[in-house]
Amino acid sequence: MNRNEMIARVKAEMPERRWTHTVGVMETSIILAERFGADPVKAEQAAILHDVAKYWATSRMEAIIREEGLPAELLAFDKELWHAPVGAFVAERDYGVTDPAILDAIRYHTSGREGMTLMDKIVCLADYMEPGRDFPAVQSIRELAEHSLERALVAGFDSTITYLLQQGKRIYPLTFAARNDLLLTIREAGL
Amino acid sequence: MNRNEMIARVKAEMPERRWTHTVGVMETSIILAERFGADPVKAEQAAILHDVAKYWATSRMEAIIREEGLPAELLAFDKELWHAPVGAFVAERDYGVTDPAILDAIRYHTSGREGMTLMDKIVCLADYMEPGRDFPAVQSIRELAEHSLERALVAGFDSTITYLLQQGKRIYPLTFAARNDLLLTIREAGL
Repeated sequence: MNRNEMIARVKAEMPERRWTHTVGVMETSIILAERFGADPVKAEQAAILHDVAKYWATSRMEAIIREEGLPAELLAFDKELWHAPVGAFVAERDYGVTDPAILDAIRYHTSGREGMTLMDKIVCLADYMEPGRDFPAVQSIRELAEHSLERALVAGFDSTITYLLQQGKRIYPLTFAARNDLLLTIREAGL
Repeated sequence: MNRNEMIARVKAEMPERRWTHTVGVMETSIILAERFGADPVKAEQAAILHDVAKYWATSRMEAIIREEGLPAELLAFDKELWHAPVGAFVAERDYGVTDPAILDAIRYHTSGREGMTLMDKIVCLADYMEPGRDFPAVQSIRELAEHSLERALVAGFDSTITYLLQQGKRIYPLTFAARNDLLLTIREAGL
């Protein structure tokens, strides 16, 4: 499927404002890929598809999680997490994406994971800081992203974890593992 | 070893102000045990011993972690965590404690864990809220503890996690797992 077809199909899956967000993530992913030495074409493709399942009915996402062997523990956590692994499944099945780097960047764009790849980091961070985002830490995240993907991502995960603490919600294990792992990388690599 | 001997030996392991803290944890553990239906004698014994290794040299704790098969991942996390599992080891080896409920309450009093026992919860919470403690959330924790061990403990772990976020430090996996598990318990049991 070519880029224009993919864009047209994904755009039809979501309301206008979410498509505007997706365009922001596409543009930011390209900028971050060029800044930190990743393939901007792949980064944009992951960005196009990252929220493909965001507006799917919960029951439709749940069916895929149950029937396609996605991690069942997802079902015990916030539904906000589901669209990412479901999106990776849909990107492969319905959009013909086969590159594991792109599929993983979609799969882990909300939760993060231990051992995030460069592409994982770029799409996850772009999702936090695209121009349409407006939350207390976003300006600080954008400033950190000038020089360090890892420091910017830690600030992003910190804002998510702080929000979950305030809401009395559980923290998804991968998110907490992603943050711990990034802090270790920053310390060990002196980033 | 009788109670008075145990107290005398533990007191000699720490500075005066830490012993004052320990007395606060003993008294609070007894109150919480009576309030929530645990054995106050066991709760007090765990409290007496909970910080027995707190003022040991790092190298002495590290030697026990390495040589006695304690979880090696501890060494990659904050040294503040080490004295709890080391304390449990010392309680058994040097103070003759054999009751697993007491040993576990010592072992997990700083980190918590998934599936905390009643005794684990009492000693961990007493350590957060004993009368000498003074930090922003402590009054709220004490109020929650009037009715719910679990809600009070979540508030305690929230304060620890918030502190670690602010300090840019990693969060020990058991702490985050303990909080998630307590939230699930609260939701499922309607606590």
